[in-house]
Amino acid sequence: MPEYRKDIILDEWVIISTERAKRPELFKEEEIKVESPSKMICPFDKGNENMTPPEILRVDENGKIINSSNPNWQVRIVPNKFPALKPYAAPGSRLFGIYSIMDGFGLHEVVINSPEHILGLNQLSKQQLKIVTEAYAKRLKDIEKDSRIESVIIMLNQGKDAGASIEHSHSQIFAIPFISPVLEKELKGTSKYYRNYKNCAMCEILAFETQENKRIVFENNHFIILQPFASRNPFETWIVPKKHYPNFEDIGTEEIPSFAECLKILADFFYEQLGNPSFNYYIHTGPLRMGTHHYYHWHFELIPKLSIKAGFEIATGIDICITTPEDTARFMKESIKV
Amino acid sequence: MPEYRKDIILDEWVIISTERAKRPELFKEEEIKVESPSKMICPFDKGNENMTPPEILRVDENGKIINSSNPNWQVRIVPNKFPALKPYAAPGSRLFGIYSIMDGFGLHEVVINSPEHILGLNQLSKQQLKIVTEAYAKRLKDIEKDSRIESVIIMLNQGKDAGASIEHSHSQIFAIPFISPVLEKELKGTSKYYRNYKNCAMCEILAFETQENKRIVFENNHFIILQPFASRNPFETWIVPKKHYPNFEDIGTEEIPSFAECLKILADFFYEQLGNPSFNYYIHTGPLRMGTHHYYHWHFELIPKLSIKAGFEIATGIDICITTPEDTARFMKESIKV
Repeated sequence: MPEYRKDIILDEWVIISTERAKRPELFKEEEIKVESPSKMICPFDKGNENMTPPEILRVDENGKIINSSNPNWQVRIVPNKFPALKPYAAPGSRLFGIYSIMDGFGLHEVVINSPEHILGLNQLSKQQLKIVTEAYAKRLKDIEKDSRIESVIIMLNQGKDAGASIEHSHSQIFAIPFISPVLEKELKGTSKYYRNYKNCAMCEILAFETQENKRIVFENNHFIILQPFASRNPFETWIVPKKHYPNFEDIGTEEIPSFAECLKILADFFYEQLGNPSFNYYIHTGPLRMGTHHYYHWHFELIPKLSIKAGFEIATGIDICITTPEDTARFMKESIKV
Repeated sequence: MPEYRKDIILDEWVIISTERAKRPELFKEEEIKVESPSKMICPFDKGNENMTPPEILRVDENGKIINSSNPNWQVRIVPNKFPALKPYAAPGSRLFGIYSIMDGFGLHEVVINSPEHILGLNQLSKQQLKIVTEAYAKRLKDIEKDSRIESVIIMLNQGKDAGASIEHSHSQIFAIPFISPVLEKELKGTSKYYRNYKNCAMCEILAFETQENKRIVFENNHFIILQPFASRNPFETWIVPKKHYPNFEDIGTEEIPSFAECLKILADFFYEQLGNPSFNYYIHTGPLRMGTHHYYHWHFELIPKLSIKAGFEIATGIDICITTPEDTARFMKESIKV
C-alpha cells in the first residue's frame, strides 16, 4: 500500500510508493526503459483491450460514450495497472510518533489517446484531440461526485526525459484527497491578488498581454496561447481560456474545438520546429469543493524538457530561464502558420 | 542584465537570465556539454589561476587565508565567470504594467574544491573536505556584512544529470536579496511547528529518529546522517547538527572535522555502492537578518539523480519516492564501514 507521509519541516505530504519500491542495491545505473513495440505487445493498442484493467470510459469517433463491447473506440480511460495511489484506501491520517501518515488514497487513471500505436501528440488530428479533451472533461465530472476527492490533475508525459514509461501516447488523471502544494500556491497567490486589486490575476494578464502583444503566440475565438511573462522554462507555453471560470470540467461545448486547435498547433510546433523534445503538460484546474470563482482561472501549461533544473533551482525554488518569453513568442508566432 | 520577474499567479520571483540567453531556434537538440580535459585547459586547475575572474578568497592546506601570490592554495573562491546574478545591480523592484521587475542583483561565486583536476567529491580527502567546509563558513561570514543580502545558498552539482557544466569539482555560493521560496516554506513549516509544540521540528526529528533507529545511517560527536521519514527521492540524505542553531556559518571549530567526516562517508558511499550517480547537495541555512533561533535548524541535503521527476511531481508539487527511507538507511548502514 502506498502511503502519504507528512514532511513536518515543510508541512507538506509526500508519497512513498512502496508498491513500486525496489531493493536499494538495484538503483545502481538505473535507467527508465521506454517499452519498445518491437519487443512487446502494446497494452494500449486496439485489439489488446483485455491487457488493461477493466475500463472506466470508452468513446467513439464522435466523442459519444459507447459500450465496452464496441470495438470502434477512439479514446479509452482505464485505471493505471501500477498506480501510485489506491482507490480503496481510507483518506484519513494517523499519528506515527511525531509524524503523520495517511494511506495512499487516490485515483490514478490512464487516458489512451488513440487506438493506433502512435508515439507523439503531433500524430493526433485536431478531431482526435477534441475527443481526448471531451473525455478529460467527462471523466472529471464523474470524479467530482466522489466527495473524498478534493483536487484533480490531468497531465501528459511525452518522451523519456519527461518520465514516460510507455511509448503509446497517453494522458494521466490523478485525483487526490487534498489540495496539492502547487494548486495551494496558485490559490494563495491569486486570492492575494484578488484581495489587493479586486480582479482575477489571469484576466489581468490576458488584458495586459493582448495590449502589449509581445508574448502572445496565437489567439482564436475562445483561447489565447502565450509565453508567460515570468517564464520558468524556455518555451514554457500556456493556453488560457478567455472566459473566466475556475474549473476545466466546465469547459463549454463551443470551446472544445478551439482548445483542440491550440493543442494541435503546439504539438506540431514542438515536433517540427524544435526536434520533438520530451515535454510534460498539465491542466491547472480549480479545487472541486471550494468557492474559488472570483479569483481562480483554469489554464493549461506545456513545459518542454529543453534545460536541466540544476542545484540552484531545486535548492531555492527560484527558476532560472535562459531565454526570454518575448524571443520565444516571436519565434513561435513566425513559425506557426494557421 | 539578468532580471527578476514576479510570477503574479504564484507570487514568487523568477530569474530571466538574458545574458545566458540564446536564439530560440538553437534549442533544437540542445545538450549540456561537460567540458572535457582532453579538449581544453581547465580554468580551475593549479597554474591556471589567471583564467578565472579576480579571486575573493584563497586558503592553504591548514585552511588559513593566504595571499593571491602564494601558489600553495588548496581552495579558492572566485566570482562565476558567467553569473546568473550581478553584484552591481540595485535590489529594488519597479512596475512594468501589471508586473514587477527587479534587476538581477546577487552574488554568484564558485568554490574550487581542489587545486588538482579531480572530478568527484570522493577524490577529496577528509582533510580537504574540512578545508572546503571552513571556506564556506568564512565566505558566508563576509557576505553577511552586505546588508542587501537576505539569504545565501551553498550547493554542489556533480555530474551532467545534476547540471554540472565544468567537470573540475567545485561548489557554488548564491547570495540573494530576499528569502528564497524553499527557505520561506521551511520557515513557515518550522515556525508553525514551533507555535504548535514549542519545540524545534528538527530537534524533535533527531530525538525521535535516535529512539526509533530505523532511518539513521551514521552518527559522530556532532552530526547525524539520516534518511528523512518523508523522503522525496531515493537515497535523499541529510546531515543534521546535533546542536540547535539556525545558521551554518556559526558552525563551531570542533564541529567542522565531524561534518567533513560525514561528507567523506557520503561521497565514498555514492561512488562505491551506487555507481557514481550525478547528485546535488545544498546547505539549508537560515536567513541572515531574521530572528529564527527558536525554530530554524540548519542542515545539509544530498539528492542523487536516481529517478526522473515526471509530470505528476511537477504538476502537483507532491513527490513520489519509489523506495522507503527505512530500506535505503539499512543498506547504507550495512555498506558504510567506519
